[in-house]
Amino acid sequence: MTDAPTVTGLPDRLGETELAALDAHWRAANYLSVGQIYLQANPLLQEPLRPEHIKPRLLGHWGTSPGLNLVYTHLNRLIATRGVETLCVWGPGHGGPAVLAGSWLEGSYTETYPDVTRDRAGMERLFRQFSFPGGVPSHVAPETPGSIHEGGELGYSLAHAFGAAFDHPHLLVACVIGDGEAETGPLAASWHSNKFLDPVHDGAVLPILHLNGYKIANPAVLARLPEPELDDLLRGYGYEPIQVTGDEPAAVHRALAMAFDTALDRIESIQRAARRDGARERPRWPMVVLRTPKGWTGPRTVDGLPVEGTWRSHQVPLAEVRDNPEHLQELEAWLRSYRPEELFDGSGQPVPQVLSCVPSGSRRLGAVPYANGGVLLRELPLPALEEFAVEVSRRGGSVHEPTRVLGDLLAAVMEATAPRRDFRVVGPDETASNRLDALYEVTGKAWQERTLATDEHLSREGRVMEVLSEHLCQGWLEGYVLTGRHGLFSCYEAFAHIVDSMVNQHIKWLRTSRRLPWRRPVASLNYLLTSHVWRQDHNGFSHQDPGFVDHVLNKSPEVVRVYLPPDANTLLSVADHVLRSRDYVNVIVAGKQPCFDWLTLDEARAHCARGAGAWAWASTEQPDREPDVVLACAGDVPTQEILAAAQLLREHAPELSVRVVNVVDMARLLPNGEHPHGMTDAEYDTLFTRDKPVIFAYHGYPWLIHRLAYRRHGHANLHVRGYKEEGTTTTPFDMVVRNDLDRYRLVMDVVDRVPGLGARAVVLRQAMADVRSRHRAWIRQHGIDLPEVADWTWSG
Amino acid sequence: MTDAPTVTGLPDRLGETELAALDAHWRAANYLSVGQIYLQANPLLQEPLRPEHIKPRLLGHWGTSPGLNLVYTHLNRLIATRGVETLCVWGPGHGGPAVLAGSWLEGSYTETYPDVTRDRAGMERLFRQFSFPGGVPSHVAPETPGSIHEGGELGYSLAHAFGAAFDHPHLLVACVIGDGEAETGPLAASWHSNKFLDPVHDGAVLPILHLNGYKIANPAVLARLPEPELDDLLRGYGYEPIQVTGDEPAAVHRALAMAFDTALDRIESIQRAARRDGARERPRWPMVVLRTPKGWTGPRTVDGLPVEGTWRSHQVPLAEVRDNPEHLQELEAWLRSYRPEELFDGSGQPVPQVLSCVPSGSRRLGAVPYANGGVLLRELPLPALEEFAVEVSRRGGSVHEPTRVLGDLLAAVMEATAPRRDFRVVGPDETASNRLDALYEVTGKAWQERTLATDEHLSREGRVMEVLSEHLCQGWLEGYVLTGRHGLFSCYEAFAHIVDSMVNQHIKWLRTSRRLPWRRPVASLNYLLTSHVWRQDHNGFSHQDPGFVDHVLNKSPEVVRVYLPPDANTLLSVADHVLRSRDYVNVIVAGKQPCFDWLTLDEARAHCARGAGAWAWASTEQPDREPDVVLACAGDVPTQEILAAAQLLREHAPELSVRVVNVVDMARLLPNGEHPHGMTDAEYDTLFTRDKPVIFAYHGYPWLIHRLAYRRHGHANLHVRGYKEEGTTTTPFDMVVRNDLDRYRLVMDVVDRVPGLGARAVVLRQAMADVRSRHRAWIRQHGIDLPEVADWTWSG
Repeated sequence: MTDAPTVTGLPDRLGETELAALDAHWRAANYLSVGQIYLQANPLLQEPLRPEHIKPRLLGHWGTSPGLNLVYTHLNRLIATRGVETLCVWGPGHGGPAVLAGSWLEGSYTETYPDVTRDRAGMERLFRQFSFPGGVPSHVAPETPGSIHEGGELGYSLAHAFGAAFDHPHLLVACVIGDGEAETGPLAASWHSNKFLDPVHDGAVLPILHLNGYKIANPAVLARLPEPELDDLLRGYGYEPIQVTGDEPAAVHRALAMAFDTALDRIESIQRAARRDGARERPRWPMVVLRTPKGWTGPRTVDGLPVEGTWRSHQVPLAEVRDNPEHLQELEAWLRSYRPEELFDGSGQPVPQVLSCVPSGSRRLGAVPYANGGVLLRELPLPALEEFAVEVSRRGGSVHEPTRVLGDLLAAVMEATAPRRDFRVVGPDETASNRLDALYEVTGKAWQERTLATDEHLSREGRVMEVLSEHLCQGWLEGYVLTGRHGLFSCYEAFAHIVDSMVNQHIKWLRTSRRLPWRRPVASLNYLLTSHVWRQDHNGFSHQDPGFVDHVLNKSPEVVRVYLPPDANTLLSVADHVLRSRDYVNVIVAGKQPCFDWLTLDEARAHCARGAGAWAWASTEQPDREPDVVLACAGDVPTQEILAAAQLLREHAPELSVRVVNVVDMARLLPNGEHPHGMTDAEYDTLFTRDKPVIFAYHGYPWLIHRLAYRRHGHANLHVRGYKEEGTTTTPFDMVVRNDLDRYRLVMDVVDRVPGLGARAVVLRQAMADVRSRHRAWIRQHGIDLPEVADWTWSG
Repeated sequence: MTDAPTVTGLPDRLGETELAALDAHWRAANYLSVGQIYLQANPLLQEPLRPEHIKPRLLGHWGTSPGLNLVYTHLNRLIATRGVETLCVWGPGHGGPAVLAGSWLEGSYTETYPDVTRDRAGMERLFRQFSFPGGVPSHVAPETPGSIHEGGELGYSLAHAFGAAFDHPHLLVACVIGDGEAETGPLAASWHSNKFLDPVHDGAVLPILHLNGYKIANPAVLARLPEPELDDLLRGYGYEPIQVTGDEPAAVHRALAMAFDTALDRIESIQRAARRDGARERPRWPMVVLRTPKGWTGPRTVDGLPVEGTWRSHQVPLAEVRDNPEHLQELEAWLRSYRPEELFDGSGQPVPQVLSCVPSGSRRLGAVPYANGGVLLRELPLPALEEFAVEVSRRGGSVHEPTRVLGDLLAAVMEATAPRRDFRVVGPDETASNRLDALYEVTGKAWQERTLATDEHLSREGRVMEVLSEHLCQGWLEGYVLTGRHGLFSCYEAFAHIVDSMVNQHIKWLRTSRRLPWRRPVASLNYLLTSHVWRQDHNGFSHQDPGFVDHVLNKSPEVVRVYLPPDANTLLSVADHVLRSRDYVNVIVAGKQPCFDWLTLDEARAHCARGAGAWAWASTEQPDREPDVVLACAGDVPTQEILAAAQLLREHAPELSVRVVNVVDMARLLPNGEHPHGMTDAEYDTLFTRDKPVIFAYHGYPWLIHRLAYRRHGHANLHVRGYKEEGTTTTPFDMVVRNDLDRYRLVMDVVDRVPGLGARAVVLRQAMADVRSRHRAWIRQHGIDLPEVADWTWSG
């Protein structure tokens, strides 16, 4: 790697003094990175290195560190000279040592963690805590000042960067993308985010593709492309790539400084053109391609094998340093190659030259408020729900599409946030399909490409974001909320699984950040899962999967909340609640198809506040004795079937005492020791009884209910119906029949479990079986539901 | 859209007769597509269209159909004129009507489904069954002849196409990519698959990017790029794009025929150069960009709004046809515009002109054997396990890295398949990290980019595939096994969630295809999840998630199998089993870190055959009475902790009768009525007792065990320990302590639940609590595990 840097034609902006200072900062950061991986004592090398100075377990990754340190150094210069507010998203895995080094040098680390002082003792603590039990992770993480991005799972850095930049017009979001990460699908899709970024209302994203050649044990695809091919690719993504290549520090410093200056000039000119001159063409934003050796400045060879510039420098280049005197010596030589005595004074404080590039105050990368979004967060202006509630004069006497009712509420929020622009709705091209199109009366769909006369609702500054990538929706929204704003992700239920792994990481981020006192609460990440499993009439099996709820409920209980509102007003109440909440991942499952209205707004509020409750109006129980059976339900379709079953029982077995229970907040079923929303055993027993049969009609996989309630009294009497993977293309009622969730089957379940019906049991059971047979014959012939089901209404 | 087609400079290869024939085939397919969406009777329009001819529910999507039909027609021509074996992957959603039309026309549909005859009655059946209960889905699906690809969830078409092409040197895989799908991350990453395709040993992939301008309700990103930018992008991906643009049928037919011929010429020349002349440079493969209007040839306007060429043609362009006489009339005019009387004779059979482009026999797209991979599948040559088994002279007397032992077996399979090339191992750059590097002694890592002197094991024809994209690994392997080969996907446990949604679709594919008698069984899709939750010493929280097993166990029990082998020999036995199996998704969770050897090969085989069993050698129970407590375990780390707990109990409470049970096959815990591997209640009771305390140490989320076993006797006595989201960067033993899965905690659990220990209980409990406290202090100070744990060995 001896090519000269390829930024040319611009005057050299670095004087010798500045160059030396930048190099000093970089060397200091490299020194601190190596120290974190290896040392537990003797941090300044004030005495010769001995085995006991070395950590007992060598964990960490050197390969990516020098490149990240270089970027940190030069972003410092850029911020200090330009004064631009900058957030950096550090994509590469195991980038911890570098970003921690930068933060410690600039002082933001000590401000965040006062016990890690900016002196010899603090340096030792910084070294020791790294990848140490109870310490800090190897990846950039919530613990890292200045970060909104967990570097452990790769693929999401660029989407996070764009999410952070939306509606932050004065912010520059730098984003370092490793060449390993660049192979992932989500990252590959993220490049096209520039088609959704408005140069007027949004900030700028500066991607820095760091090609150090290797991922873990293999060369990286993009690093080995012929340069013209990579150039085509990046231009095809819509960027203007600026190349910086080299392995000679001074030359690379010069080239990178020039590249960053060039990029900033270009960004300022784009923003000026759009903001002042009204330019409307999608700009070609600049980006930097930085090619430097993996493990640069580390050992060239170890045990006779090449290390610097190869995959061998990925992790810990010198192993077994405690036991191998030669390696110990090589480590000492490596550390001393940075000349620590020039970088730190005798007390361990960085000398002024090292710090001369560092910006001040909240402009420092580790202190920028955007990375601790809670400090910027404002309450969402939520209107009174009364404006949007549906009138319920008779239960089940009217139908509404719940998500359409919600759409009106979201539109009002969108409108109320028009001046402040801190609310967005994202979705994979399904916002209208999910009946949220009232939003288009107050905003448009973000779109910077050319438009045609037949297009509708596209807008350069729209705050609805539609792209056919659940990964982008998720990544954008994460970046948006983590930098202090609010939002909602509406998604087909089955395809929320596409982002299973991303939501894992976001939940982990929140779990960790909630335990860090300096991290202020951010808005919750809210999912609206609709177009759900029971109503995939034309999509069929591929679109039927209710398991996202199961996935989320495996994660940290302090973070996750799951709601299944059974009608329009309960959906409004739940939505109002989650939009006000902080630091959660909220999952709402609600249908978009016409659904009976069961509760008035006041009733809905009370019911949602309880999270689960008996519906006396649907029950036939007597006040002074326990019911014979509890019919429980969660979800809109199961609620309808349970109510229909209750009605059948009222008609055909009027002597039965039936209690109907509806569950909105799934975590209520968990023991109160396991989830903050969990009921006490006494509460549970009061609602479900200790020993009566409970027939539970649930929206998703039935065993989820058992997994939540297995510790409860009477669990042996709990009988759950739900989706059991009998998916297909068929009518709504046929779906519930195939999965044994239909009203007739539920009545049979009651008959089978409640004693005392005598001979009536046989007759009733047969009647129910007959209508199910009739259904099967009818559907085979007509392809539509039985009239008595299609036209059914509740008679209270 | 009036641009002229942009393929120029080549002689027009279509004579007027051929042009007319191609257009007739296309019109016939379009007619059949519209018929499927709308008609349930009068399929040939032999009488005027009346409301009762229309289906009661109009489901289906017209928008994508004409483009897919056009491709089908022209692939027919290409196959017939060139004789090339061709498989087509149809990416766009809701492509069912088109592909079904093509198959019905060529006769392969009737051969597959004899009741859908190629005549009037069969046409009516074809129409009626579409999106009808008990019929066929709207998406391309397992039911569709000639398909290996479910079109419902978007993103995977191109990865499937490459998977199908690997090691099929004579196959051409055409792949239609919708512009909606092209926005997804997995698809965006898939373009780079050409860096892994060997022109000598692999077939060719011909991507056909179909830009019809819109996804569901929005313009598509790629469709709106300025053409030079799209061209840059596709060249940057390494392709030579051939543009076909138009809305005038004859011109488009000419251009597309020419484009396909040009592409085939180029492919043949690339293959010749590589295979005959030894060319070693990565070729620039051709691809086609096809721009035609969405809903082309459909209604131009409906109710005064433009439809053809806009997003309004996405679904059913004319709604409420039964009730709206004007729409009924427009539908009839639309259908008659294809001139069905010229295309079908009075009995409903396609006229010879329509069929003249159709290839014959197994060359037809709906009859190609590659799409029914089971017919091509050969048994894997699996060597005797004795060659690889580890010797166990004393239980726990030695340690091995189980996945390294497996690596030797896999290498032998790789070697044995060298001449036939029908086995591949895929992974996201983790094959060596996962200790499977013995593979590199017999094959290399597939790589077509340039190589450097420091690279290792890269090979143009290697059958290990490493790319930092779980999506690509999964998509490639799916395409590979569905076309009749074998493979294994090794993955970090936590990041298998990245492909949750993909594995959903593959499981659904298998569930459906198992019920289709004409689909022959294919090799199972095998996961090796390693680098698991308990051993993420340097990665920490972001890499800790054992929930993929939970995800998979929600799906169809006839397809899914989950194995947790506790040592090297059991891993060998499980691997041997899954590599021989068919039509499953097998998940193996096994560690890569040194693990005690517990079972000899023969014992391992017997244990795996049972799936779960008591380990008498670790138990202290008496032959003639039930044990006081059952210590159960599943997974390598929990097994070690259970055995250590058993040893502590033997020492400190020798009077206790303890049974140790190990579970390898998780589905054994399910009732036998719910999973084919499930135990009967009698079997379960024999193993776990009906009423004794069971302390179960499980690898993953503890509630999974409850979800599997909640119907069993004695479920109230089942106490499960497992991972409860207490993840962090720490030592191996500290991880189990934090999650209460450690030996000391397990002993305390026994003490708390087994009566009769008297005063000893208090002492023993305190002793265990003391050592846990000592651990906490030790780890805070030293960062490594207590010596008594680090150096522990089993004393039998």
